[in-house]
Amino acid sequence: MNRSFIGMVAVTTSLLAASAAAFEVEEIGSFHIGGRQVTLTGLPSKDVTFVAGGVPTRVDPNGEFFAEQMYVQFVRLAKPRARFPLLMWHGGGLSGVTYETKPDGKPGWQQFFLRAGHSVYVSDAVERGRASWARFPEIFKSEPLFRTKKEAWELFRIGPDGSYKDASTKPIAHPDTRFPIEAFDQFMKQGVARWIGTDDITVAAYVQLLNRVGPSVLMAHSQGGPFAVEATLKATDRVRALILLEPSGSANYGRWSFAALKGLPVLIVYGDRWKDSPRWVKTRATVDQLLQRLREAEANAEMLDLPARGIAGNSHMFMMDTNSDQIAGLIQDWLTRVGMIR
Amino acid sequence: MNRSFIGMVAVTTSLLAASAAAFEVEEIGSFHIGGRQVTLTGLPSKDVTFVAGGVPTRVDPNGEFFAEQMYVQFVRLAKPRARFPLLMWHGGGLSGVTYETKPDGKPGWQQFFLRAGHSVYVSDAVERGRASWARFPEIFKSEPLFRTKKEAWELFRIGPDGSYKDASTKPIAHPDTRFPIEAFDQFMKQGVARWIGTDDITVAAYVQLLNRVGPSVLMAHSQGGPFAVEATLKATDRVRALILLEPSGSANYGRWSFAALKGLPVLIVYGDRWKDSPRWVKTRATVDQLLQRLREAEANAEMLDLPARGIAGNSHMFMMDTNSDQIAGLIQDWLTRVGMIR
Repeated sequence: MNRSFIGMVAVTTSLLAASAAAFEVEEIGSFHIGGRQVTLTGLPSKDVTFVAGGVPTRVDPNGEFFAEQMYVQFVRLAKPRARFPLLMWHGGGLSGVTYETKPDGKPGWQQFFLRAGHSVYVSDAVERGRASWARFPEIFKSEPLFRTKKEAWELFRIGPDGSYKDASTKPIAHPDTRFPIEAFDQFMKQGVARWIGTDDITVAAYVQLLNRVGPSVLMAHSQGGPFAVEATLKATDRVRALILLEPSGSANYGRWSFAALKGLPVLIVYGDRWKDSPRWVKTRATVDQLLQRLREAEANAEMLDLPARGIAGNSHMFMMDTNSDQIAGLIQDWLTRVGMIR
Repeated sequence: MNRSFIGMVAVTTSLLAASAAAFEVEEIGSFHIGGRQVTLTGLPSKDVTFVAGGVPTRVDPNGEFFAEQMYVQFVRLAKPRARFPLLMWHGGGLSGVTYETKPDGKPGWQQFFLRAGHSVYVSDAVERGRASWARFPEIFKSEPLFRTKKEAWELFRIGPDGSYKDASTKPIAHPDTRFPIEAFDQFMKQGVARWIGTDDITVAAYVQLLNRVGPSVLMAHSQGGPFAVEATLKATDRVRALILLEPSGSANYGRWSFAALKGLPVLIVYGDRWKDSPRWVKTRATVDQLLQRLREAEANAEMLDLPARGIAGNSHMFMMDTNSDQIAGLIQDWLTRVGMIR
């Protein structure tokens, strides 16, 4: 454990807590970016009764639609201390809500980083949340996938594989879990459907976002991790620091050249309990290789391995865990060290 | 036209413009409310290839899910001038994005009312946006409906019935339309799917929202109008003023007793060009009846008919029209007159 690093964190975190009063906002707003117009033809009209007992209306589903756009909400501070806006990209089956108030009702990372002096852009990727999704199979080719409670409980390492049985059995958590398990059902309400085969359009929209916002600090979670790496390779001059929160494994890591990322500050953050799951052991191996390749390309890449720093019990959703502020504080300290704070 | 009323508006609007600097936020956050757990069984497992060229994963779609919850995002001011928070409910096929930055990139009503001193709660109703939606036909019984460009152009009175032909023909707008037609495609990106048969669960979630937030000013657009009236009847002590923006017609208006709304300030706002559309003439008639019945029940009900005030060309989406600040200013003046501002 690096004691001086931990000590510095304690100071910063208490400073932040002290300034947890109001923050001045210059503008709050949103926009959609990306997307294309699609024309559907040849679908049958249907009689639809919109109100129970009402008169049916003939609905013609043919015509022009927009599809594949992304949603971005921003909160711009009047006096940011950070040099660049912070973009926050969520993981699979989730939306930007990941970074808002935590399922236990306590403030999430959106507000933490606002109070820490960052203007913040939280997005819903193509197909998720306010980005909207398109008819299938006419526009999106696959059917939507919904995450079960069992998958979330085990995949997100709240409990070990096999610990979620069924609706009538209380699932078993890791004894030291930091996830607020009494808020697990509240977390499940945040889930949204996902599709397959939409990776390329998602990355295209993210690249458009970087080009629109300009120089940024980019933070991405899980499935958003490979998207963030690819978008950074395609808009390298836009990304001034890259934070990967338990990025997914990706076959593409091995294919890409990272030469353009020389000198880029990259922080990978990893929680606990992945050693208990064969799937996570495999994922972590690809991420360790990613780190190795980033270092070979002379990116300024660092692994923040929480258990190695003496912080135990964090789930895959550590921005919602009970010690989320502590982890955010470590990231804020790293951002300070790599020159992202004025 | 009531000249003294218009004069007062001009003063207020310029005061607001003058104070269009930063505003102090005490908390920004969100929550999901309502919803229930559903267990699905007996569905076949499928092999899903998440990444092109990757190894298929066996996906079991059976298990526990949450369905029918609603999403609410709030921005609480450090020093609100309004006595109660402002809840903003959207219309059909849309989400809370209705009130955010306008399709033309200019500030929307969320920010207008924040700057005017209101803490603001913008929600995505059940099934829309970040509220998420549930599998059909297993949980939601109908298929989703998507709005075409033609429907939006004509139903929202940007142009007359029949003015949208097809993808290759520029649609014809009302000559005096206030809708920023160059931003119409951007507006279409805000659309989300809707279902039928979900009215009761939507109202149930809205009632829960009122009970959670407490005394509020409630603003609702279009399809949200009947939901707001019903929710107000079910949580009367929570609603201190009710603003209905071109509420939909509803068979229920005739059924409900409004006795409990005695003394409640109610403002109905109506745009222009509805006389050109048989469908809108019918809807407006039900809304005039609603106003009449509210007055009979001795609610403090008022119609803000924009053309009657000399303000021409507003569409159904007047919170996005070029004169949206002017209309918001009229609403703010009414809120002041009925005692909602400190």
